[in-house]
Amino acid sequence: MKHSIDTTLRLKMLHRPGQIARLGAALAEADALIGEITTLSVGEEHSVREVTVETADEAHTESVIVAVRAVDGVQVLDIVDRAFERHKGGKVHSTSRVELRNLRDFRQIYTPGVARVCRAIQADPDRAWEYTGIGNSVGIFTNGSRVLGLGNIGALASMPVMEGKAVIYDAFVGISATPLLVDALDVGEFVNTVECLSTSFAGIHLEDIRSPDCYRIEEALLARLDKPVFHDDQHGTATVALAAVINACRAAGLSLERARVGQIGLGAAGSAIARLMITFGVGDVLVTDRSEEAKRWLAGFGARPVDQATLMREADIVIAATGQPGLIDPETVRPGQVLFPLSNPDPEIDPRDAIRAGAAFASDGRSINNALAFPGLFRGALDVKSRAITPDMMIAAARALAALAEPGEVVPSPLVLSVHQEVRRVVAAEATARGLAGTARLGRPR
Amino acid sequence: MKHSIDTTLRLKMLHRPGQIARLGAALAEADALIGEITTLSVGEEHSVREVTVETADEAHTESVIVAVRAVDGVQVLDIVDRAFERHKGGKVHSTSRVELRNLRDFRQIYTPGVARVCRAIQADPDRAWEYTGIGNSVGIFTNGSRVLGLGNIGALASMPVMEGKAVIYDAFVGISATPLLVDALDVGEFVNTVECLSTSFAGIHLEDIRSPDCYRIEEALLARLDKPVFHDDQHGTATVALAAVINACRAAGLSLERARVGQIGLGAAGSAIARLMITFGVGDVLVTDRSEEAKRWLAGFGARPVDQATLMREADIVIAATGQPGLIDPETVRPGQVLFPLSNPDPEIDPRDAIRAGAAFASDGRSINNALAFPGLFRGALDVKSRAITPDMMIAAARALAALAEPGEVVPSPLVLSVHQEVRRVVAAEATARGLAGTARLGRPR
Repeated sequence: MKHSIDTTLRLKMLHRPGQIARLGAALAEADALIGEITTLSVGEEHSVREVTVETADEAHTESVIVAVRAVDGVQVLDIVDRAFERHKGGKVHSTSRVELRNLRDFRQIYTPGVARVCRAIQADPDRAWEYTGIGNSVGIFTNGSRVLGLGNIGALASMPVMEGKAVIYDAFVGISATPLLVDALDVGEFVNTVECLSTSFAGIHLEDIRSPDCYRIEEALLARLDKPVFHDDQHGTATVALAAVINACRAAGLSLERARVGQIGLGAAGSAIARLMITFGVGDVLVTDRSEEAKRWLAGFGARPVDQATLMREADIVIAATGQPGLIDPETVRPGQVLFPLSNPDPEIDPRDAIRAGAAFASDGRSINNALAFPGLFRGALDVKSRAITPDMMIAAARALAALAEPGEVVPSPLVLSVHQEVRRVVAAEATARGLAGTARLGRPR
Repeated sequence: MKHSIDTTLRLKMLHRPGQIARLGAALAEADALIGEITTLSVGEEHSVREVTVETADEAHTESVIVAVRAVDGVQVLDIVDRAFERHKGGKVHSTSRVELRNLRDFRQIYTPGVARVCRAIQADPDRAWEYTGIGNSVGIFTNGSRVLGLGNIGALASMPVMEGKAVIYDAFVGISATPLLVDALDVGEFVNTVECLSTSFAGIHLEDIRSPDCYRIEEALLARLDKPVFHDDQHGTATVALAAVINACRAAGLSLERARVGQIGLGAAGSAIARLMITFGVGDVLVTDRSEEAKRWLAGFGARPVDQATLMREADIVIAATGQPGLIDPETVRPGQVLFPLSNPDPEIDPRDAIRAGAAFASDGRSINNALAFPGLFRGALDVKSRAITPDMMIAAARALAALAEPGEVVPSPLVLSVHQEVRRVVAAEATARGLAGTARLGRPR
């Protein structure tokens, strides 16, 4: 059972030895995991505590609450769904970086002082790098047509994900990222909207757009803009997957040329993963998908199209990005195989089941998460004003991520801030080495 | 002479009685105003101070620096253009509102926790008001085609103004406002871009768009969106001008019905001012412009088209919004007249010249500034989820602003935060009284 919901119960409990043990037993019986236990107050007779429990789904949460209510000496005062709490009022805010307290501030920041700054940028557009926030900004654009594993939920409902990305940009690398919902399924309308707005940002982050629209959108914007355009679902995922594969090969003592990497699912993420593996130099990249067309397309890049059974039989490392929970039957796992089932929130096979079936290692999208890649990739590209984020820069990022993983893990934790600083550094260095430093242009090309 | 540039000189000075006086005399001789004097260090012999001087233009600044260098016992260590300093790196940043420190934070804010929040919004779009930042957000859209009095400087060069507006939204009323440069002069392209993006915001602030494009853009968006669409140059300016006129009438003992208000210049701001005066019930609204078509258009709303000489002769209160510095000849000012020359950064007549010519009162765009209006108008509209900001709401805001002016002034200072809270309150109350509360809809209408 996967435990993906955190619910916090505020409990009034008899303050007696054994009380927590009784509660713990009841929670175990109900198959709930215990997270944090915080004590809010302790009196002579009672204590008030907040206990966070992890459950699989809402029905499970309900049954856990019933179980807790049944424990002797425990009264449920309140139930808080922390995940929802955390999203209240939105997760990002466009915040002033300047003081605005007196008339002088006002006249410098706003009229009349601002007029001279505008004139200076009009005379020399490059001054916008210095005197506006554009050079440190990324626009996160989505139409909500392919959000996580949830499918086409629409632009509005995808906002919590986009705000989450913006939080990560700010918290990890100090980029000002704006979530923008483009309420248009038409590719041309989407492209025109992003292009018209592109002057507002130094980088364009495309997110959660269905395939094949995402390729056409990316291609059109790359052709039209002189700044990085990066589809996170493709390239962020591919970068982190490559880091994991590098470490998996190392652990198995496999050379790149001899490694057989199998990619199940050739949507945006899967295709990008397979292509980056080929670019990186993996000897044999096996691919499978429900669509024969997708398999043929990848064959054009040098991949070997097979069926899933063949892939499971032959691949040393199996990556899945299908959005289909449970697609991989544990029976088909080969002893010693490495599995990376990446679909979120529910993977193609539970990593614990894969290990039980004999896999040498298995890790899902919670670890192998693009939050490891996009912050440092954009930070590095913006640092040196590169007009693009290239496969070379992604490979440099993947190598850095692989090198930073703790022993026994294939990737580091995204919560270690120095990881992003190192990715930033190698990405900026790679861009500079490839002659890309200083090639970005603000403003819409005419 | 207007002093609109602040320059800070870092000076090493002999620490003797009379030294500041000598410096002051030199600055007076050079026609510079002294702002703040900050002492950084004092030694036995010397002090280091920062002296902010206000000058008219860059040539004037140069001559002032020469004059200061010539003062005995004063050495210029550094020269800092504070206005430029304040804009460095941009003035707003998209900032995280949530903590992201451990794995639980990460899983709640991002995957997998975010998936449930998305699903909840998909099931009931109204939950986006609560679980995203959209309900507290405004998009500031411009194409830079008519920025301040600077004309069509383009989208990129207008960014410092847009960031300034966003600073004001955050600092005055806590709205998260995003500056967005729509790099398109075509009206249809502009409208489509804003419409496609409108789901990202609860309100649409249009800024610095040339006339007549601004009318067509506003009209098209009003017809298509179920949320406030507000062209600040028109309606913000008109609201604050109306507040000033209300107080000018009161001071002159004029009733509204008998007052003659003259509007010079019928661009976006001027037309909106004249129309709001008529809606408000001013008895006689005289209008003039270089364009006969504009005069005829305003006549259709009940204004009286005249030439500038007639207007100056007949109007009790003269408002100008032309972008033409010095347009009003002091000779034509009637004794006892009230003048509001609003063009920024340089007004149609220097208020001091108007007073010298016999005006009872004169005030320019530095005081009569839309920063008094747009924050409270949007805040009030968002508070009650009104689908529009109507003339009734603007009039309520103008009355509140008039009532809050200090004795002897026609409008309050925008730096008094309680002013915005009062505007917010009356605007929300007016919207509620008119049945507009709860009429806004997030998402793009289909």
